[in-house]
Amino acid sequence: MQRNGRTLGSREIERKFLVKSLPEKLKRSRRYLIAQGYLASEPGGRHVRIRKKGKTASLTFKVGRGGAREEREIKLSAKQFAMLWPATTGRRLRKLRHELPWKNVLIEIDIYRGKHAGLVVAEVEFPDRATCRKFKPPSWFGREVTGEKRYSNVRLANE
Amino acid sequence: MQRNGRTLGSREIERKFLVKSLPEKLKRSRRYLIAQGYLASEPGGRHVRIRKKGKTASLTFKVGRGGAREEREIKLSAKQFAMLWPATTGRRLRKLRHELPWKNVLIEIDIYRGKHAGLVVAEVEFPDRATCRKFKPPSWFGREVTGEKRYSNVRLANE
Repeated sequence: MQRNGRTLGSREIERKFLVKSLPEKLKRSRRYLIAQGYLASEPGGRHVRIRKKGKTASLTFKVGRGGAREEREIKLSAKQFAMLWPATTGRRLRKLRHELPWKNVLIEIDIYRGKHAGLVVAEVEFPDRATCRKFKPPSWFGREVTGEKRYSNVRLANE
Repeated sequence: MQRNGRTLGSREIERKFLVKSLPEKLKRSRRYLIAQGYLASEPGGRHVRIRKKGKTASLTFKVGRGGAREEREIKLSAKQFAMLWPATTGRRLRKLRHELPWKNVLIEIDIYRGKHAGLVVAEVEFPDRATCRKFKPPSWFGREVTGEKRYSNVRLANE
């Protein structure tokens, strides 16, 4: 992902957790409304997603599942996004994302809207495998769901 | 497709044929080198393709198979194309396309390169279903292969 200044077209290392309770400081964190939809997704997890995050549109290719996967992303103009968005009908989701700096990492907390309202998920992205392994989840995290298909965004969007 | 001035984000009506012999006038027709690759493709035919045709890059979403299907296409900048192209490794094909005006339609003749060298296919796109049904193939056309998975570009690229 581009937000940490990492190169686009990179390999992600991340873990995903359910969230039991929202921390107090979430009220002061940065947040964005995200609407995303899937143009095509293969059973093995390979897919093409388009997304509007705030006012920024992007198209992202991902391959692989679970803790580490390859990702390539481009920005889309408003016109490019508008042309492709209708193709995602029935394969969309909406969520409110909060970005919470926590120790040496950034936690992204996604509060789902629409048919998945009530689901809250935290994703933590790591610079390397060692940091990933050593990560101690905060007390308000629930069960780890890294790599569980049930909580993949592709699956949630298609349900 | 955009070349005939039709709106992008439209429904295609087309037929596809093998080509037995190349017509003499092909030498004077417009031609482009095409390189294309697939970001993701679903078993039902839904897919996302990126393509360089001459110097123009594009991303195309298609759904459905056979005689009529929905298609949405955007142009890509050289930079956008360069970011996504590596994701198509192992899912690419190259062909030389000739555009041949013939009676009231445009015939596209694709001469495949690389591992499919020897395969020559003609595609004819129609403005409506009536014109499509009435079409009489020229004598140098071979068997009709409209909707045959074996000759779909996705399949050829993945073989």
